Amino acid sequence: METAALFHRPTDNYAYACANGDLKLVLRTKKGDALKATLVHGDPFDWTEASPGNWEWNKSELAMTHSGSDSLFDYWTITVHPPYHRIRYAFQLYNDQESLFYCEKGIYDEPLKDNGYYFCFPFVHTSDATDVPKWVENTIWYQIFPERFANGNHNNNPEGTLEWGSEDPSPTNFFGGDLEGVLQNLDYLENLGVNGIYFTPIFKATSNHKYDTIDYFEIDPQFGTKETFKKLVDECHKRGIRIMLDAVFNHSGYYFPHFQDVLEKGEKSAYKDWFHIREFPIVQEPRPNYDTFAFTPFMPKLNTQHPEVKKYLLDVARYWVEEFDIDGWRLDVANEIDHQFWREFRAAVKEIKPDLYILGEIWHDSIAWLRGDQFDSVMNYPFQTNVLDLFARKTITPKKFMENMTTVSYLYPETINKGLFNLVGSHDTPRILTECGEDKELTKLIFTLMLTYPGTPCIYYGDEVALTGGMDPGCRKCMPWDPTEQDQDMLAHIQSMIELRTKEPLLANEGSLSWQYDAEAISFKKSTENKEVFVIINPSDKSKTVELLSGLSSPNTWKDAMNQTVVFKDTNKNRIDIPAKQFMILIVQ
Amino acid sequence: METAALFHRPTDNYAYACANGDLKLVLRTKKGDALKATLVHGDPFDWTEASPGNWEWNKSELAMTHSGSDSLFDYWTITVHPPYHRIRYAFQLYNDQESLFYCEKGIYDEPLKDNGYYFCFPFVHTSDATDVPKWVENTIWYQIFPERFANGNHNNNPEGTLEWGSEDPSPTNFFGGDLEGVLQNLDYLENLGVNGIYFTPIFKATSNHKYDTIDYFEIDPQFGTKETFKKLVDECHKRGIRIMLDAVFNHSGYYFPHFQDVLEKGEKSAYKDWFHIREFPIVQEPRPNYDTFAFTPFMPKLNTQHPEVKKYLLDVARYWVEEFDIDGWRLDVANEIDHQFWREFRAAVKEIKPDLYILGEIWHDSIAWLRGDQFDSVMNYPFQTNVLDLFARKTITPKKFMENMTTVSYLYPETINKGLFNLVGSHDTPRILTECGEDKELTKLIFTLMLTYPGTPCIYYGDEVALTGGMDPGCRKCMPWDPTEQDQDMLAHIQSMIELRTKEPLLANEGSLSWQYDAEAISFKKSTENKEVFVIINPSDKSKTVELLSGLSSPNTWKDAMNQTVVFKDTNKNRIDIPAKQFMILIVQ
Repeated sequence: METAALFHRPTDNYAYACANGDLKLVLRTKKGDALKATLVHGDPFDWTEASPGNWEWNKSELAMTHSGSDSLFDYWTITVHPPYHRIRYAFQLYNDQESLFYCEKGIYDEPLKDNGYYFCFPFVHTSDATDVPKWVENTIWYQIFPERFANGNHNNNPEGTLEWGSEDPSPTNFFGGDLEGVLQNLDYLENLGVNGIYFTPIFKATSNHKYDTIDYFEIDPQFGTKETFKKLVDECHKRGIRIMLDAVFNHSGYYFPHFQDVLEKGEKSAYKDWFHIREFPIVQEPRPNYDTFAFTPFMPKLNTQHPEVKKYLLDVARYWVEEFDIDGWRLDVANEIDHQFWREFRAAVKEIKPDLYILGEIWHDSIAWLRGDQFDSVMNYPFQTNVLDLFARKTITPKKFMENMTTVSYLYPETINKGLFNLVGSHDTPRILTECGEDKELTKLIFTLMLTYPGTPCIYYGDEVALTGGMDPGCRKCMPWDPTEQDQDMLAHIQSMIELRTKEPLLANEGSLSWQYDAEAISFKKSTENKEVFVIINPSDKSKTVELLSGLSSPNTWKDAMNQTVVFKDTNKNRIDIPAKQFMILIVQ
Repeated sequence: METAALFHRPTDNYAYACANGDLKLVLRTKKGDALKATLVHGDPFDWTEASPGNWEWNKSELAMTHSGSDSLFDYWTITVHPPYHRIRYAFQLYNDQESLFYCEKGIYDEPLKDNGYYFCFPFVHTSDATDVPKWVENTIWYQIFPERFANGNHNNNPEGTLEWGSEDPSPTNFFGGDLEGVLQNLDYLENLGVNGIYFTPIFKATSNHKYDTIDYFEIDPQFGTKETFKKLVDECHKRGIRIMLDAVFNHSGYYFPHFQDVLEKGEKSAYKDWFHIREFPIVQEPRPNYDTFAFTPFMPKLNTQHPEVKKYLLDVARYWVEEFDIDGWRLDVANEIDHQFWREFRAAVKEIKPDLYILGEIWHDSIAWLRGDQFDSVMNYPFQTNVLDLFARKTITPKKFMENMTTVSYLYPETINKGLFNLVGSHDTPRILTECGEDKELTKLIFTLMLTYPGTPCIYYGDEVALTGGMDPGCRKCMPWDPTEQDQDMLAHIQSMIELRTKEPLLANEGSLSWQYDAEAISFKKSTENKEVFVIINPSDKSKTVELLSGLSSPNTWKDAMNQTVVFKDTNKNRIDIPAKQFMILIVQ
């Protein structure tokens, strides 16, 4: 076995506490190296005097599950529940040729007696658990870009508002979308089946996207009033729909009064330390001499290490939870703000509302924010990348897709994966239908995948009616409300997938997932002890045959989840043909 | 190259911010696989329009340093200082046969153009830096077990106090050591050269070791009064000696009034949730039905998730800093308390005294506590284990020793290593001289190593005068004060090593360390641009020849640090003979 490829560390995705007192352990080995892995473990203080003066540590051995593989590694997992919350442990690996013992201090031929050499998870504390709020696991989100969803009140139209959908979106044009528009269309959303709305920013700002905040304590007057927003939250809550707002705390807008004060008074400004000014006088060319988002002079970076800035932003964070009862904060450019700020942020908002969802916008490996002290989860851009690579760019095979998805699923604790915000498009990316060359069948398959996959999926407004659009600002078109302009077939498909996910917990976050890597189509199983579902998705132009392997002791019927017809009976191994660009969801009981 | 052995993640010991805005990056490869490693990097937002519509990311390549090897891996390091604090990066590896590109999304043949596939350290914030307080890097500690160091006041002797040193220590006997005894011997400590005292617990408790606290707000009356303690801190500070106390927060003593209240009133006690009681009535056999330290009924575990307990313990933590100006807290059984408690602990004490040293007692991999949010550093038991394995148990070779030390040094950021509390014995282990079979020459070599090695070393009281003793309680003998009972040779050796470390920063935490793995003796170099020291320690019974390789462009003189004699002149590669059980420290300029 390749000993240099073994990896485990008693933290992060490799060892984590769950809210129920369980401890989950994950071991990584080189792909194909080990045939079997076991956990050798015991309470660190549980010794028996085997003979006078001769104390032996009481350990036992448990089989681990080979739960996944990617292109380089096998992953082995086990869940334990140490009776005294404490555990010392190591791994024993076996194949046909050899066995080895892997512990904190190294690799040995035989299990060691001295538990001081073992890995240690010293105490499973539920306060350190990384479980996401339970409701998040059962939420299907709908992302609204307020300026483009619906114009419900023409009195608050900005100057120069264009007729709804009359032009392509530009970086600067306005169509009058507002909160009243959302309120008026809650029936539509309820009918679609979503139960969470993620709003891009709604606070007072200059642009149409509102990521350049002027006042964090005010609703943008173009979007409506606090009364309207309160009514919207209340009405949503009545319908079981949660509300998440966008916290743009990395930078303010250029017209944020505190930054204007610095521009005006320079070094004499009381707010000069609210930003990262490298030197005075302030210049913007060739590059700003103050830190900004990217190199955008209009988005000066806030100094979140400064006590006054911290207080201000934490007051903002608390205000909208306390006064308006919002259910989640999505954190814009979350990765560029210091960890210490986010720890204080979490403490502040969770104190008011312990089940508030904290979602970070991070596009890369996010483990440093996902240790129970900062975010509940992050936006799952790697999900989107893999989907695009397979379905749209066609640069990877289904096998590679499944391996990549496995890599992503072992980046974080499973507890956090349940809250991973899966998306295939947003106001920051081309629309998924456009990415797929306007192939609606492929796009439907993508939504089938997203809506049967673990995590908390999000539909970008309009995708459900087959809206198109390229890179920002193209992806920010006005939502078409005339049913003849909406793709009713796409809408019906997404609606039915949402309904299925809502009814069948195995299609959301219940059970454990296993990929069928050898299949030529995407194929995964979700299973509990008594029930299984198979999701098979064929993105290719050809029909594919997929072999299904049930783990149930005596599966009785295999039903097509979409129409409840019986596909197989009394068998536990079957082949099924999936036509080109089609999918099948089978429920086995 | 073995791609499955590559490891990097943009966090912890692999990527960390420093207080000066530097970012340190570490890459792990299979030993011997790569001959060269480079960092391909750039600002994530720094793109140039190479031709119309064709944007190219501006990246550059920097050579990394092969900074260490252990038995399985090579470690490559680099320090960068991103001009806009942001960096996207990947690694390029080369050997004679091939090159490969390692980034967040996987391993490729060639560098990728899309920086979205690269690793990301999104922003270097100094508030996330893990640097230990500067003074800690320059501190040499002396651990005092107060009951056994010196009896300075017979009026506070406990009942049944035995004559000083008249008997072997037992789990229950008392010899009357106290704070006054420490005060009276500060000249001795100053003369020894230490500049930090770590006191095992001094708060009111039942036992002679005082780890079973009754009152966290009181000095144990057997040890003295608050006035004496205040005087002791002040006097130490005048002499430049820092004071660290032991915080026993994992568990209270059995006679802690809150626990007594629970024993008495059962479920009706107002303090029932202060502990982890599994069920009422409370029993202690066969095992306590409440959580304890180990399975010791006399040490009931405190529920540090309970708001009242948190408040109580944080008040304690603040009290001794605020009122007595202590400089450090050593946290007993730190690993069994929840991370969330420690985060609040850090915030509470650092608010009062930002350069307070927070030291966790953790015997195993401690990365989960060393992320800038909890401890500054931990007790370095792996250091002790390696020392014992080489010098005392003789189970490893010098080569394996150097490899193991390398493994340990890459477990944590270098910033944290500078505060690692190196020890070779304590009140919890047999004394080092006893471990070495009372071989004083070997013991001297061990102190030579500890006092020339990076970290913050600690001498257990009495080791400097060659005190012996087995496992607790044997290692807790009374300090001999009669000079004829003190080993003056050992004392002089340790004194001179302390003096050397104090004078020569390269023998403490300056410069970078490289082991000479091929040497048959322990041999390492510490170097800066203009100066080097070589430490060569021969633990064997035979003379060894060690080859020394200077990195200086034109080293002029090599001086024996102990006596300033010139050993070599005008050369840059030398062999030197180190007799059995001897050492040599060479300073090259």
